[in-house]
Amino acid sequence: MEIEEKLLELNAAALTPWSIVDGKLSNEFTFSDFIHAFGFMSSVALCAEKLNHHPEWSNAYHKVHVSLVTHDVGGITGKDFELAYAIEAILKQ
Amino acid sequence: MEIEEKLLELNAAALTPWSIVDGKLSNEFTFSDFIHAFGFMSSVALCAEKLNHHPEWSNAYHKVHVSLVTHDVGGITGKDFELAYAIEAILKQ
Amino acid sequence: MEIEEKLLELNAAALTPWSIVDGKLSNEFTFSDFIHAFGFMSSVALCAEKLNHHPEWSNAYHKVHVSLVTHDVGGITGKDFELAYAIEAILKQ
Amino acid sequence: MEIEEKLLELNAAALTPWSIVDGKLSNEFTFSDFIHAFGFMSSVALCAEKLNHHPEWSNAYHKVHVSLVTHDVGGITGKDFELAYAIEAILKQ
Repeated sequence: MEIEEKLLELNAAALTPWSIVDGKLSNEFTFSDFIHAFGFMSSVALCAEKLNHHPEWSNAYHKVHVSLVTHDVGGITGKDFELAYAIEAILKQ
Repeated sequence: MEIEEKLLELNAAALTPWSIVDGKLSNEFTFSDFIHAFGFMSSVALCAEKLNHHPEWSNAYHKVHVSLVTHDVGGITGKDFELAYAIEAILKQ
Repeated sequence: MEIEEKLLELNAAALTPWSIVDGKLSNEFTFSDFIHAFGFMSSVALCAEKLNHHPEWSNAYHKVHVSLVTHDVGGITGKDFELAYAIEAILKQ
Repeated sequence: MEIEEKLLELNAAALTPWSIVDGKLSNEFTFSDFIHAFGFMSSVALCAEKLNHHPEWSNAYHKVHVSLVTHDVGGITGKDFELAYAIEAILKQ
């Protein structure tokens, strides 16, 4: 249940709750428009490249859906939570 | 059959062929790594905002999948082809 | 004095005051780190391309300096104020 | 003269030659338009964040000026050349 505990801990501080969908740590963020959505994506891209751990994500206008999984091990790991916390830090500024 | 003709014309010049999937003008692009994939996405984002016509798209590491549709009319229009040509221009530089 | 009046109006709502330096509408923004600075730049880039009016700007780590001028007329115009207001809107979200 | 040798080696493979200006490894790149210039900047930003070594850079429409220096030691180091090679790799794709 380590993942479940980590999820609870993450969601205690998250602006919108993360959930586990198809074995991936998932969330969807809604911005005021495409300009803010893509600015967010640019910051997340920088974090992902720095952590060398990249999201599966999609965007349609002001919505960004993010799915985090560690392909090497076929499941959610600490690296996915690390990126999730980095995403929360971006959202909070 | 106007859409089919426009698709043929687009693909005559396209690096990888576009197709119509679920009523959307679709393509997938593969880059050498995330850095090049996201640089491409940043250029496409600028075009999309300029054209005021935004893609549905997803990214996983070095792959970018793009689906173009005009939601107002519930189908593919000239705006989708305009964005597709702009994407081809970005890929060609 | 129209420019001066517009500057007062802009600064009444601005987070950090704009000033006129070398005939350009100028400001400098400081973020927590490069990730936030470049996320901001990505949003501004989208606005600039949409308005078809681009900044002269520089970045060093967490700082972004912006200078706005309309080269066609060799001075500050309404387009520069339009971009300045768009930048303020990005900063405020 | 190690820096001079490294500069020669870098320029042997560079599309436009780098030079040392005010003690910084410098270059200027010209693109077809803002869209391509900012796509390039987005890729460089990802490299910089990954290397934890950030450029001083400026942009005006289709031009990007880059200055590389290692502030900790007050001069050009191997980290600056590492980022310069990463920039060349982005330009070459």
